[in-house]
Amino acid sequence: MLRSSDDRFTLDPQLARDTRPVGDLVLCRVLLTNDANYPWLILVPRRTGASEIIDLDSADQAQLTAEIAQVSRVLKDITRCDKINVAALGNVVAQLHVHIIARTRNDAAWPKPVWGVVNAKGYQDSTAERLIRQVQQSLSVTP
Amino acid sequence: MLRSSDDRFTLDPQLARDTRPVGDLVLCRVLLTNDANYPWLILVPRRTGASEIIDLDSADQAQLTAEIAQVSRVLKDITRCDKINVAALGNVVAQLHVHIIARTRNDAAWPKPVWGVVNAKGYQDSTAERLIRQVQQSLSVTP
Repeated sequence: MLRSSDDRFTLDPQLARDTRPVGDLVLCRVLLTNDANYPWLILVPRRTGASEIIDLDSADQAQLTAEIAQVSRVLKDITRCDKINVAALGNVVAQLHVHIIARTRNDAAWPKPVWGVVNAKGYQDSTAERLIRQVQQSLSVTP
Repeated sequence: MLRSSDDRFTLDPQLARDTRPVGDLVLCRVLLTNDANYPWLILVPRRTGASEIIDLDSADQAQLTAEIAQVSRVLKDITRCDKINVAALGNVVAQLHVHIIARTRNDAAWPKPVWGVVNAKGYQDSTAERLIRQVQQSLSVTP
């Protein structure tokens, strides 16, 4: 089973490169994707070796679901978006991670899924930091 | 709350058009997407009015998670795929539905997400029917 202790967990280098840290929930590390086109969070369960949701035991699956719901609600409240997109794909980065993306009808890819439509747009640091602070306060997490 | 009785539930017409029925689990209707490029199932919680996972109450969220895991395992066992992609997007079809897609390293879109990469490829009826029967037997459901 994958219920390894958290202290062996390390974030995939590509995920680290493409995101900024937000904080840790009970199971998942929360990240902000470096793409100002969409408010885009990523949840990474701190379980070494997991690449599929079904690699988690059922307690972790339930916790992941609760954290997806919690983060979706927070992101919806902050952004007033039209739709939340939730996806666990992982064809490129094997480490299990769940995208939670706030979509609006006038965003760069609407109504398509975000992947491969337009290039990532860099954040102004102040914009990213403000969004991260809002999410941290709503989730009661610290970096 | 959305815990309406199942008898008011009707499948979105576009989902009905793009899929073949597989059967009903406790919460979700299971569908096979008419795209022979990828073994691609869809779960639709039979809850009228739900468009986001967070529109479901927490008992239904837990049941959805269990059914996502159950169907992912079945699809992985049948197809021996390299990766399962799980996604709740719904930018076009508002009715809450979860894609569960078996991906292989030589499929038509790998490693990209499947949406918008290549046109859907029609199934031979016999191929679709065989896959549906395998899924039905593994899930113990009937149409």
